[in-house]
Amino acid sequence: MTKEIQLAANERIDQLYANEIKIIQSAEVFSFSLDAVLLADFAHPVLKQRGKIVDLCAGNGAVGLFLTKKTRAQITEVEIQPRLIDMAKRSIELNDLTAQVNTLNIDLKDIFHQLHKDSVDTVTCNPPYFANEPTSKKNPNPYLALARHESTASLADIIEVISGLLKMGGKMYMVHRPERLQEIFSLLAKNRLVPKRIRLVYPKAGREANMVLIEAIKDGNPGGLRFIPPVTVYDEQDEYLPEVKRVLYGTE
Amino acid sequence: MTKEIQLAANERIDQLYANEIKIIQSAEVFSFSLDAVLLADFAHPVLKQRGKIVDLCAGNGAVGLFLTKKTRAQITEVEIQPRLIDMAKRSIELNDLTAQVNTLNIDLKDIFHQLHKDSVDTVTCNPPYFANEPTSKKNPNPYLALARHESTASLADIIEVISGLLKMGGKMYMVHRPERLQEIFSLLAKNRLVPKRIRLVYPKAGREANMVLIEAIKDGNPGGLRFIPPVTVYDEQDEYLPEVKRVLYGTE
Repeated sequence: MTKEIQLAANERIDQLYANEIKIIQSAEVFSFSLDAVLLADFAHPVLKQRGKIVDLCAGNGAVGLFLTKKTRAQITEVEIQPRLIDMAKRSIELNDLTAQVNTLNIDLKDIFHQLHKDSVDTVTCNPPYFANEPTSKKNPNPYLALARHESTASLADIIEVISGLLKMGGKMYMVHRPERLQEIFSLLAKNRLVPKRIRLVYPKAGREANMVLIEAIKDGNPGGLRFIPPVTVYDEQDEYLPEVKRVLYGTE
Repeated sequence: MTKEIQLAANERIDQLYANEIKIIQSAEVFSFSLDAVLLADFAHPVLKQRGKIVDLCAGNGAVGLFLTKKTRAQITEVEIQPRLIDMAKRSIELNDLTAQVNTLNIDLKDIFHQLHKDSVDTVTCNPPYFANEPTSKKNPNPYLALARHESTASLADIIEVISGLLKMGGKMYMVHRPERLQEIFSLLAKNRLVPKRIRLVYPKAGREANMVLIEAIKDGNPGGLRFIPPVTVYDEQDEYLPEVKRVLYGTE
């Protein structure tokens, strides 16, 4: 039973069977992918109803929607692209989650006009993966280019905002590319964020990691960084391995 | 056929079947372990006979001896403990490798009295894993305490020496604990060393990583960090998995 939600041309509704969340997707604009699913699975969000969660670079809102299955806290999805916020809003309605999830269609550099500093318990972020270098080859589709390249905010901007939002002891969860881990560690150190837990994602046995999940604590005690068991996504027959099936379908 | 080499009390000769190197070991003093074997396997040392390799924190010389199976370059083993250098020297003789491998029984802070700066192609290092904090619980055995704790040189000292030794474009290979990776990345950045390749070692499926292998290039181009396929050591029955059997025994 799907609620009556208006779909734009080329939009579809995808459902994550593991958590019964329906997400309005469009390959033309942006689709959530395994990155978002693994990030929501990796996160330990604040649980209490009065807790505050912010999902930065929210895209079509997938991470924030998935988190509703883990927490009763308030979730704010922040995204600069109006077209994506529009999809996120309709997905929130489609899942009857308007009481728990709201959206902010702003540039994250303006976030402190809307949200107080040191007020958030948990920040999640699936940022653009590629630095905005003059030489970098961008997707001709402007929606996808913005989602993939640091056009409007650099990784340094994003991590500074995350730290500004978080309370002391608040937690950040980010998914990124492993080749940028040294830079991420350096930016965390400059912004009072102490990495505590890392999970690497390998596409297949014998292949290099293509994703890294990072947990950091604002003003956490130094040291104690753990590399938890990795995820390998596909087996030799390109079928999902059990851990990924659990996250996607709720079964193994 | 073992050469006539004098063994001290409680010493034994271990042989790594994968490369037929014999190593004089003593549980009372120091034994090489999987760390050294995986480090030598991970390293891509300079190959030519006129190349120069230095193994820092050499212990009983295992890493340098293993490397002789991969390269014709000259190898210098540097170790502060006379008792360990004595074992290393006898292992070098036992394997007929005195033409390729020599030892320096010095504090690595004095290394530039013996070796020129910017003169080495490859440095390997299996340093003490634990910071020398006043509260840290040390092994009452002074040999083992020195091998495990940064008593005589800190990680910062060691990485500074590695960078000083290496030519531009020279490569460092280090094995360490994953919980110190952020600190290692930071020290590399301060010492003109760019990490390029990381391999994590997990003891068993479902367990956290307990070792990390790091390759860095002096004055390398920034970026391009790769996390190559991890090693998992044991299966559910505590038997070595095929990758580890290959490294230890030369078979799968």
